[in-house]
Amino acid sequence: MSYQAPLKDMLFVMNELANLQGVSQLPGCEDASPETAEAVLEESAKFVAGEIAPLNHAGDKEPSYWKDGNVFTSKGFKEAFKQFAEAGWQGLQHPADFGGQGLPKLVGTPCVEMLHGANLAFALVALLSDGAIEALLTAGSDEMKATYLEPLVTGKWTGTMNLTEPQAGSDLAAVRSRAVPQDDGTYKIFGTKIFITYGEHDMAENIIHLVLARTPNAPEGVKGISLFIVPKFMVNADGSLGARNDAHCVSIEHKLGIKASPTAVLQFGDNGGAIGTLVGEENRGLEYMFIMMNAARFGVGMQGIGLSENAYQQAVAFAKDRVQSRDLAGSAGPVSIIHHPDVRRLLMNMRSQTEAARALAYVGASLYDAAHHHADAATRAENQAVYEYLVPIIKGWSTELSQDVARDGVQVHGGMGFIEETGAAQHYRDAKILTIYEGTTAIQANDLVGRKTVRDGGKVAKGLIAQVRATEAELAKLDGADFAAIRKHLAQGAADLEAVVDYVAGNMKTDIKAVFAGSVTYLKLAGIVLGGWQMARAAVISQQKLDAGSSDASFYQAKIVTARFFADHFLAQSSGMRTAIIDGSAGVLALSEDQF
Amino acid sequence: MSYQAPLKDMLFVMNELANLQGVSQLPGCEDASPETAEAVLEESAKFVAGEIAPLNHAGDKEPSYWKDGNVFTSKGFKEAFKQFAEAGWQGLQHPADFGGQGLPKLVGTPCVEMLHGANLAFALVALLSDGAIEALLTAGSDEMKATYLEPLVTGKWTGTMNLTEPQAGSDLAAVRSRAVPQDDGTYKIFGTKIFITYGEHDMAENIIHLVLARTPNAPEGVKGISLFIVPKFMVNADGSLGARNDAHCVSIEHKLGIKASPTAVLQFGDNGGAIGTLVGEENRGLEYMFIMMNAARFGVGMQGIGLSENAYQQAVAFAKDRVQSRDLAGSAGPVSIIHHPDVRRLLMNMRSQTEAARALAYVGASLYDAAHHHADAATRAENQAVYEYLVPIIKGWSTELSQDVARDGVQVHGGMGFIEETGAAQHYRDAKILTIYEGTTAIQANDLVGRKTVRDGGKVAKGLIAQVRATEAELAKLDGADFAAIRKHLAQGAADLEAVVDYVAGNMKTDIKAVFAGSVTYLKLAGIVLGGWQMARAAVISQQKLDAGSSDASFYQAKIVTARFFADHFLAQSSGMRTAIIDGSAGVLALSEDQF
Repeated sequence: MSYQAPLKDMLFVMNELANLQGVSQLPGCEDASPETAEAVLEESAKFVAGEIAPLNHAGDKEPSYWKDGNVFTSKGFKEAFKQFAEAGWQGLQHPADFGGQGLPKLVGTPCVEMLHGANLAFALVALLSDGAIEALLTAGSDEMKATYLEPLVTGKWTGTMNLTEPQAGSDLAAVRSRAVPQDDGTYKIFGTKIFITYGEHDMAENIIHLVLARTPNAPEGVKGISLFIVPKFMVNADGSLGARNDAHCVSIEHKLGIKASPTAVLQFGDNGGAIGTLVGEENRGLEYMFIMMNAARFGVGMQGIGLSENAYQQAVAFAKDRVQSRDLAGSAGPVSIIHHPDVRRLLMNMRSQTEAARALAYVGASLYDAAHHHADAATRAENQAVYEYLVPIIKGWSTELSQDVARDGVQVHGGMGFIEETGAAQHYRDAKILTIYEGTTAIQANDLVGRKTVRDGGKVAKGLIAQVRATEAELAKLDGADFAAIRKHLAQGAADLEAVVDYVAGNMKTDIKAVFAGSVTYLKLAGIVLGGWQMARAAVISQQKLDAGSSDASFYQAKIVTARFFADHFLAQSSGMRTAIIDGSAGVLALSEDQF
Repeated sequence: MSYQAPLKDMLFVMNELANLQGVSQLPGCEDASPETAEAVLEESAKFVAGEIAPLNHAGDKEPSYWKDGNVFTSKGFKEAFKQFAEAGWQGLQHPADFGGQGLPKLVGTPCVEMLHGANLAFALVALLSDGAIEALLTAGSDEMKATYLEPLVTGKWTGTMNLTEPQAGSDLAAVRSRAVPQDDGTYKIFGTKIFITYGEHDMAENIIHLVLARTPNAPEGVKGISLFIVPKFMVNADGSLGARNDAHCVSIEHKLGIKASPTAVLQFGDNGGAIGTLVGEENRGLEYMFIMMNAARFGVGMQGIGLSENAYQQAVAFAKDRVQSRDLAGSAGPVSIIHHPDVRRLLMNMRSQTEAARALAYVGASLYDAAHHHADAATRAENQAVYEYLVPIIKGWSTELSQDVARDGVQVHGGMGFIEETGAAQHYRDAKILTIYEGTTAIQANDLVGRKTVRDGGKVAKGLIAQVRATEAELAKLDGADFAAIRKHLAQGAADLEAVVDYVAGNMKTDIKAVFAGSVTYLKLAGIVLGGWQMARAAVISQQKLDAGSSDASFYQAKIVTARFFADHFLAQSSGMRTAIIDGSAGVLALSEDQF
């Protein structure tokens, strides 16, 4: 069975948890009524199931390859991207002025999720273009916008992000690529960039590289980095393509996963210098690059969720189909393995984490829309602050859990899971990149600790915890063991998260290493508590639907069960995590280097 | 840097935690003095580092392949196995009567660990031969022993286990292969076996397949399975090789990992019937196969530990070498990444889990030796019972954690970890099989729950918990925050484990599905508490060494730190796991099949 977008769950989250109705009433979002949103999702689901998902396993088996400086992508990718572009999917969230559809992030996000769920390697090309578009919208000149945006938004061209160099991975201060100013106002770019996703390919007419480099006499470190547009083909005044630029792909990597997506080593300036144009002002490159990265980080979080959903669907299908051993409670013959309790546990692990991460991400998207479109400036700022707190969690937590989910998915398949033909192993391999690129989980956690928690003394975090407590109060009004368990573990989770936020905010100045020794665990704890909060909200709403006599009782009952599972199996870990964060730094830091 | 056996840690565990001195005083183990054991380990370490480890990554890049019914193993494997056999490593733990060295399991186990650590795919051939040897020693006739044992023990031939069929994975009741008795006392075997590790290869002159099949009129289910020897080449009375038997490899699998080891589909009897000889009595095949499986399960646990050690060593080497970003506490320039707290945390995750699993496994090996060699029958039985309780934990827990360790290892490498050339990704791929073959973790957990906990009402488990409490009392005598933290979390862990044992033993009859819904988590909890207990014992002994003025203070201090880390980061999870087991079954089991 191939990937099918979980439309019902997506719409439930959008409508019931992420306030689609409210978003559609924001200025500029009026076209995004719940009905329109549903129609868009249905169309997207049909497209990805029909055109994109079938290329996923095939692309893994026959990856893109390099020959004489050119990269040939996996069979069908070129045609599929053409269809993707022509149907307008690249432009879904981008401004109508440049050929986009201008839909809110809340409506675009499920479409992004399903594209990634269907085919991570394919979807990356769109994710990178999204980042380039964001950066040009924010920092590009009018001329740049006029030249580059429409072809990018319509998928005629694609974009890349060129940060990493062999000596400069997470540490952009170490970037050494050079930009030498020319008399005509352009720059000549020299240097080597590595790990450039879709840095070269055959799916679009042109590739717009956004490249970090240093101008002569620029300050050292991150304050001396500028951002340049370096197109693969120069663009003439009329928009037609000109000469080939001096930016060449010298090899692509042999990777653990996402094999269909070419990861390029790009050489700039080996033949006299690649022609680049400065974006915005000199030495502000990092700031602009962060615009791309923040969009991309949210997108990578969606990759984790999409991949998890795909792995879950595949595991469920196998568990229903594979007959093996008798039912524990006694049966005449062997049963499908979905009857076995540990298979259930694995499937519920997968399902509940995927749902929790999805709900948190869509709530994040809704905050983003309010931050960008709300009429009131103070409300915009408030929503922006909460959104920014959530971005590292959506990126870091959703991708870490996707590796657990993919691993559980292989396990459900038993021996068949280890055979590549089955496809479960591909998810396990593909998922591993998600906690690494666009900033490792540790980098996300640095951001969560430094910019998002310490800077405001934990104010935004505490505001979220107060909202969690409001949900606890609603849970208290409901009867039954499920709600009691959810409430108990959510309350403890909130208390643990609050203690950790206080610890982080309070100890940064006195014991920075201890705080950072617990940063990733803090990020995961925040994910579990805030994701668990969404699960609890879903359970409360589901009970209301049931009480109102919904005709879809099975769906809403399942929501309550899944929230209960998440509470007992994930929220219940919160106190152990608090210990690891607050007491556990001693063990992290005590050894000297030579004791390793 | 290539794998180096962690000799110092191995010897510490053998001598200080697993009572090597005591084992060497058991009847029949007198040759295994601590001095001899150390010499054996040193020799083994030299051999695997020099001859076996260098083939690991190369074998992954150029896996074994099938052509016209033959399997050609990766370059160098054939020659390396010849050296391995000639140096006597296959026979290390096997009786001297059949060409072995007859060393205790406690001495053999570190050698097995280092072989697996160096090269999982290579070591598998030896692991399977060990299983075949065990089965023949226990259930084979004198003639069979005379014919097959010496060539297997000396590595002239190798052995296989043929259980799985397309419709019969974990469920051996579904085995359909047929054995038709012939007038000469042999049987003709017909059927298809899949997932046969080293089922065909070019590394030995002959392959001795041990095959499960049904005789005509055998009872249904597992009580109608018999075990047969089916050699690849028939063996003449003088031990020379005769005709090729009708057992043929029709393909090998394309796998996620352990790519150098061929995983065969074997077809028995397509050309008239493969000639087989019955081992022991008809219909007792499962019982004999379990002898092989129990040996193999312990061995797979050692694979998890060996792989974890290798992944850890590689991550440490990278973390010391890779320079990136400034030290958080402030430094002039960038530092090696081992200075960054989250890299530390990942390395300590890897290190502490590997050490805990190793200590528990070696203690298990020591119990095995006492169970087999102690002069007193009651003491033998007691040790056997505890050993049997530990086997599913050593297999299940050590392999589950090896996947966490391998994942952390990739993460330490950042983007480089995702590139196959680096080698970290191979561990991540290889590790995934370990929780699947020789019985999935769920199968191990079934064994732990059913045969090892419920059958004796939790008596053996409670005996172990009493020993944990004795260590708590020793911890209470020691000063300092490290020992206080270790004691606190070990005490809570013991209480949680005891509550779970009571729950499992007490609810099996009334609510079997609920008990099994928590079985894997129970297995992991038992691993963490009993592994954490070994870490605590190591810390206590290390403090004694320090108090006695040891000249190796750095080593012993690191043991205390690592135990502290394990307590805060793993033992501290015990209460959450208890909740997942005891309360969490509701969420596991509540959905109907169509709600998935």
